[in-house]
Amino acid sequence: MEKKELEALAEAVLGQILVPLEASGRHVHLTKAQAMALFGHDLTPERPLSQPGQYLCRERVTVAGPKGELKNVAVLGPERPEGQVEISLTDGKVLGIQPPVRQSGDVKGTPGCILAGEKGKITLECGVLAAKRHIHLAPEDGRRFGVRDGQRVRLQTYTERPVVFEDVTVRISPKFAAAVHLDYDEANACGFRKGDWGRILS
Amino acid sequence: MEKKELEALAEAVLGQILVPLEASGRHVHLTKAQAMALFGHDLTPERPLSQPGQYLCRERVTVAGPKGELKNVAVLGPERPEGQVEISLTDGKVLGIQPPVRQSGDVKGTPGCILAGEKGKITLECGVLAAKRHIHLAPEDGRRFGVRDGQRVRLQTYTERPVVFEDVTVRISPKFAAAVHLDYDEANACGFRKGDWGRILS
Repeated sequence: MEKKELEALAEAVLGQILVPLEASGRHVHLTKAQAMALFGHDLTPERPLSQPGQYLCRERVTVAGPKGELKNVAVLGPERPEGQVEISLTDGKVLGIQPPVRQSGDVKGTPGCILAGEKGKITLECGVLAAKRHIHLAPEDGRRFGVRDGQRVRLQTYTERPVVFEDVTVRISPKFAAAVHLDYDEANACGFRKGDWGRILS
Repeated sequence: MEKKELEALAEAVLGQILVPLEASGRHVHLTKAQAMALFGHDLTPERPLSQPGQYLCRERVTVAGPKGELKNVAVLGPERPEGQVEISLTDGKVLGIQPPVRQSGDVKGTPGCILAGEKGKITLECGVLAAKRHIHLAPEDGRRFGVRDGQRVRLQTYTERPVVFEDVTVRISPKFAAAVHLDYDEANACGFRKGDWGRILS
């Protein structure tokens, strides 16, 4: 076998027992109306993300809080029913906003911020959060790993600074591809590098 | 018993089985000559740190790398035989320097940077590192926890985002007070708040 084939085989075998780790940078989800207010047009897909149907957009925003701002923040598509700003606790220090650690979509009572695009500015009344670490799995992955949707598991990282993350939420959907989502604080804390893997412990 | 007495008692009891967590912000250690070049005088103690004899200085420096700089960085005293800049991997992105994860003092072959103080600028040929997470213990703590100097243990955090840090180095000296030292990436990854504790797992 050639080296490339061997690597593909190794990855397929590893994927049976391990889950690829991914670091989610700070990013924003927008409604159709918010995208229109910020950019004057709908979101433009730039490249697909690991989760089927999700994409990075060509558009960028500035996120502003009482203490500072983060420029050039990624916007992910498609549009959602509610705007949401996912940042790390470190980013929160820069903005002067303390984001609660929440599941994506659980924006009720979270702090707000100001978003600026090339065509306009909007105020989000709420929606700033630090995404709770989670594992995306397709139903067949869930069966193989013996875990169910919503279950909280421990995850061992095979990284330079190995860590067991406790209280990692499993999310199972036919729309998902297997991937652990960490934020950059977590990714740096475990010394994550692209291509690293994790193991579900229970 | 009054509330204060109860709290002190609880802390004393917890300290028998747990170790207090501390987040180390980015900071710099300097030689006497470097302090002189940067400030025109010796380091001035401002307040003591948890480790006996160590102190935060009144002086501050700017740390500069090829991509950016960090202003108002803490200087810790007393002076050391070698200069050293301890930053997080997140800070490294800002500076454009990739710090290796090392024990404090193990500066050989690490990247350098530029330091600026109110009186001058110096170039460090090496010394930029991300401090490997570690536990300071006094000898009696080491006996109580059944660990020896240099041992690598696992550490469970009792924090908002609980984590088991693997490969945490135990450092034992009569000069030490019991404390786990995490950098800010690690502290944020586990949702550390002042007063949180960890448990040595072995």
